[in-house]
Parts: sequence; structure tokens; C-alpha cells
Amino acid sequence: MITSASNDKLKYVRRLQAERRFRQREGVFVVEGTRWVKELVAAAVAPTMFFATADWLANPAHQRLIGQWGHRPLEVETALLHQMAETDTPAGVLAVVPQPNLAWPAQPSLLLLLDAIRDPGNLGTLLRSAAASGVDGVILGVGCVDAFNPKVVRSSMGAVLRLPIRTAVWEEIPELVAGTAVYLAAGEGQVAYTAVDWRTPATLIIGGEADGAGSEARQLANQLIHIPMHNAMESLNAAVAGSVILFEAVRQRSEGAGERRSGEKKGLRDCD
Amino acid sequence: MITSASNDKLKYVRRLQAERRFRQREGVFVVEGTRWVKELVAAAVAPTMFFATADWLANPAHQRLIGQWGHRPLEVETALLHQMAETDTPAGVLAVVPQPNLAWPAQPSLLLLLDAIRDPGNLGTLLRSAAASGVDGVILGVGCVDAFNPKVVRSSMGAVLRLPIRTAVWEEIPELVAGTAVYLAAGEGQVAYTAVDWRTPATLIIGGEADGAGSEARQLANQLIHIPMHNAMESLNAAVAGSVILFEAVRQRSEGAGERRSGEKKGLRDCD
Repeated sequence: MITSASNDKLKYVRRLQAERRFRQREGVFVVEGTRWVKELVAAAVAPTMFFATADWLANPAHQRLIGQWGHRPLEVETALLHQMAETDTPAGVLAVVPQPNLAWPAQPSLLLLLDAIRDPGNLGTLLRSAAASGVDGVILGVGCVDAFNPKVVRSSMGAVLRLPIRTAVWEEIPELVAGTAVYLAAGEGQVAYTAVDWRTPATLIIGGEADGAGSEARQLANQLIHIPMHNAMESLNAAVAGSVILFEAVRQRSEGAGERRSGEKKGLRDCD
Repeated sequence: MITSASNDKLKYVRRLQAERRFRQREGVFVVEGTRWVKELVAAAVAPTMFFATADWLANPAHQRLIGQWGHRPLEVETALLHQMAETDTPAGVLAVVPQPNLAWPAQPSLLLLLDAIRDPGNLGTLLRSAAASGVDGVILGVGCVDAFNPKVVRSSMGAVLRLPIRTAVWEEIPELVAGTAVYLAAGEGQVAYTAVDWRTPATLIIGGEADGAGSEARQLANQLIHIPMHNAMESLNAAVAGSVILFEAVRQRSEGAGERRSGEKKGLRDCD
């Protein structure tokens, strides 16, 4: 049981929470809360460290959960878990787990490329939407916040475990997006996002909150697209803009099949 | 010029930033930054108080901007503006403005009803998306954060000036949504949001981040709808879910006209 704030493990976790480079060097990240433990159990991820308070462990549902998983936590005092945790009201459980390295899709169908997304909440939300919309892979371009930043992990709701994510410089990106048409969401785009045919392989670029996409993103893009807006609103939140377009792709891809079917029927009805 | 931290105006602004009830009693709210001043100028809103630093005023573009507006700021020391400001890096300009009270639409076409949206960033983002998608009015149900909370105002990007917004208890809501079909976004909804006909008057209910929509929302809804998801993701961020559905309504409404046109053409082509 850890009872001292000078404990090496506690210091290690705090450093992982604070430093991107340290997380990269160690190849791990920190997750907090019962919901995340459920994610780890479901994905059969083995923690490199696992901590819980006596209170958390006393709950029979939590005992069943970790019984399934086969990993026993090191017990820590509540005050010390608070020191390790990034959240204001920690749930009493915390784990250090390996950064996943899922294979990049050989023939990507839908990719998301983020250019200078600096807000951790926005990145986490975009990763959550990307996983939910069936994106094959996410590229974090220069200037993005780290995908394993504690706030990103929290708002991604498990997506960091399920999505291939690559941090890349611009020179590496053409190879990653090869075989896809590249669309950049930009206010001055001439084509509405709903007019794009999303049923063929595509990459969507979303630019940063402050200045939109940079010149490299504009060079890479085959087409600039926009979301038509009312009330003279200039733009949407970056995570919202990305999600609206990704779910239009989902709609077209599911409707594609439906339309073909109803097209056939209609053809029969019209011509018979 | 204000030079003392004990100045009454400074204390007044700080209290407006901190207290919802005080904002309500005074009928005003606080906006910060040059972008917001532009919004006020465009909407011809007269401030009840207006403060700027000497640095901000020294910029010729800012002088032109406030020249257009016809309101002169009270000059404050930078350190004191920082004390009045809610943002960590204030832009040097801040105004107190009346809470708008736009007329509720007599025949609403698209309404957004929010049930216990507690995160200010989520509420601001939803208001921004609502304004951009042409929503006629937003109802803030019980348990929502205040629309004039400084963080909500900041992330709404001007939407609080452009949208009729009502805070209402459940008994008042049926009258506000009269004449619309009420759809509630819920994971267990049986109908995909893309299968709804959004071309007729509609109200969309989005439930809170923590527990989704409550029993009153479920009673009010005519239909539960869901957003189909990949990768076993359970849900989307509340602001994203609302925005994805609202922009599907926009798409159908703009496409409705297009489809009818192409339907006519198709009919001609098929039958001639």
C-alpha cells in the first residue's frame, strides 16, 4: 500500500500526467475512473500499473470487474490517489497502460487529418466522433495536442484504444492518405459538404480552432468544402464541424446501399 | 480612468461574472474581446458599461471599430482589466450589455430543447450550432447552465445575441413547442435520425452529459431517435450529437427543394 507522497510510483504517474515527452518515452498513458477500467477489460489491455482506493475496492461490482480482468490494483490512500489524478473528483481508480499502436489501414476508406487542434476537449471529442463514425485512422498533424494528454483521453471516451492514430509531419502525410480524395473544411470552400460523394475513399482535414487550416493542408487538399450556415455565423466549433461532416459520410454510405435498392425498385415500377 | 481594485464598477463586473442570479437581477451579461465588440457593433447593441486598456485603444483598427459604434470606453489599467476578465489572457476590452429578449417564434420551424446541459462549453457550442443551423428558438430546461455564464457566452460566438432563448420549467414547455413534432435523441431510440422527416416543424431534445434526458423529456417526446454508431461507441459528446442532428435537418430542408426539382425532371425524363 502506498501511503507516502514521495513514493516513486506516485511521482512517476504525476510526471506521466504532466509531460507529453515522458509519456512518449515510456510508451504509456494514464486513465482514470471506473468507466475506463471497463474499457480496458473489454479491450483486454494489461496495465503496467494499477491503483485503487480501499473504498473503490470495497464495491462488489468493482471486484467482479477486476476479477474478470485478472489484474489486482495496488491500494493507495484516497488523498494520494487525488494527487495522482488529473480530475478534480477522482473516482478512486487509476491505471497506467501502454499506448496502443494499431495497424494503419492498407486501403483506407475514411481518414481524419487534424491540423493544429490545440484544445484537448476538441481533440478528445473529435476522436470520439471519429471512432463512432467508423473512421479508419486519424492523423495528428503538427501543432496538435497529444492524443494521450489526460484531458484528451477523458473526452475521447475510449476512442484512443480503438482507432489507429498517427502523429506525423507534413512530409509523411501523403503516404498515409494515399488512395483517398482529400477534402478540407474551410469557410471559403465553394462546395457544400453534402454535395461531396463520401462513398469513395476520402480524407477529411479539420483545421485548428484559432486560424483554421494552414498552407500545407491547403496544398494537400483536392477540394475545399464548407458547411452552409444561417444567421451570418462564420464557423462552427472545430469538433462540431468535423463530426457533422463525418456523419454525413456515414449517412451517404448507409444510404448508398438503400438508394441503390430503392432505385432498382423504382426502375421496375416506373418502367413496368 | 479606473485605477483601484476597490472601484465599484470593477466589483460590479466581477460579481456579474460570478453570479447567475445577479446577472438575472441586473438583466445584463459580460462580453470580452475584440471579436465580441465587433458582434455588438454589428447588432447595434448599446453597452451599459464599456472598458478598455490604453493599449487596446491605441490600435487604429479598434478606434475605427468603436467610432462606428459611437460608444467610448472607460479606460482601465491592464492589471485591473485582468481582474474583471474571466479569460486567462484578456484582449484588453470588456463590455456589460443587456440580456437580449428576442421574440419567441409564433410558428416555430425548428426548436432545440436542452435538458440538464451542465457543461458551459457544451451549451455555448450547442447555441453556436443552433444559430448556424437556423434554429428558431432554444429552450433551456431545468438543470442547464445559464446562457449568460461567461464561458457559455465565449463559446457561443455571438449566438446568444441572435437566438431567442428561454429558460423554462417543464410545465411551460408544451406551449413553447406547440405545433412541432418532438424528437428526443437517446441511445435506445429505434429510429435513425436520418429517417426522420425534418422538413416539417420539429423540436429536438438533447439530454445532459451525465445521465441523458430525464423522464419529463421522455414524456414530452413523440419519438426517440438515435445516431447509428460504429466501434461499439455508446454515445457522442452532447454538443456533437445535437449539431449532427440539426445539420441533418438543414440538409433535408435544402435538399427538399432540390429533390422535388430533380424529381420533376426525372419524371419528365422517365415518362417522355
